Amino acid sequence: MSIRVMGIDPGLTRCGLSIAEGGRGRAVTPIAVGVARTPADAELPDRLLRLSNAAEEWMDRYEPDVVAIERIFERGNVSTVMNTAHAVGVLMLAAARRGLPVHMYTPSEVKKALTGNGRADKAQMTTMVTRILGLSEPPKPADAADALALAICHCWRAPLLARAKEALR
Amino acid sequence: MSIRVMGIDPGLTRCGLSIAEGGRGRAVTPIAVGVARTPADAELPDRLLRLSNAAEEWMDRYEPDVVAIERIFERGNVSTVMNTAHAVGVLMLAAARRGLPVHMYTPSEVKKALTGNGRADKAQMTTMVTRILGLSEPPKPADAADALALAICHCWRAPLLARAKEALR
Repeated sequence: MSIRVMGIDPGLTRCGLSIAEGGRGRAVTPIAVGVARTPADAELPDRLLRLSNAAEEWMDRYEPDVVAIERIFERGNVSTVMNTAHAVGVLMLAAARRGLPVHMYTPSEVKKALTGNGRADKAQMTTMVTRILGLSEPPKPADAADALALAICHCWRAPLLARAKEALR
Repeated sequence: MSIRVMGIDPGLTRCGLSIAEGGRGRAVTPIAVGVARTPADAELPDRLLRLSNAAEEWMDRYEPDVVAIERIFERGNVSTVMNTAHAVGVLMLAAARRGLPVHMYTPSEVKKALTGNGRADKAQMTTMVTRILGLSEPPKPADAADALALAICHCWRAPLLARAKEALR
């Protein structure tokens, strides 16, 4: 049985979007990858509407079973963190509207899942994403690799989560 | 000419909602006030969906011209701030979907506008809200007074903002 995951690297200026399918074992098939951008000079509510529309369009076109979103850390610029938190709000809402479960992963959880090292750098991550998906070259756009990594992370976690849920019953 | 303002005191556990109408001078008429609550034990995306539905229902029922939302400060518990930021995201999205302009005010801007003192306490604010709206007793529910204060603040600012916009042309 396969699972189709939408991986989202949230952001308001650029938001990485991906769709990947997990099956038996560690095999993961990439379906789509891209970046939704919103203009920095537009009003905040308008930017959130554009992002929401982009995410909803992907959900309607690719019909994922589940959504994996990167968990925000309060590092860096405060207004960037706030904008990202607003973005995560509308992304979770888009999922909830379709009854899609949402799973959150920290950057280090994703890095650890893919490379065994929670502090892997960008180059290592891109190499692993390329290898796991059996691509002949790194995925493009380059800044969407994180969204694919999130989808891969959830594809690998899903069987464990399903077994844990089963055990709890 | 009158303006109908929806004032929102954002939050995920409780979100204050109000509708008030400003006219000539300082007169402000209260139309509605209430609190949308979401259960703390529900999943985050589901809570955002409930909040979004409540806000959209108010917007459809009362047809405000504009939305005034309290600006978040990074005080207090980090996960509460994040949840509030997610909530603000879906609230701004609901406004953007209807083409409603959104204005943000800090708590001290609202306090200053209503009492002349940016550090006014809750009791002073409730007294002023009650007086300005010509109510015989403080608005209920008590925790919705902030949402009314936001709407009043914007009713008073709107003519200034309109003149400033005109001057810029």
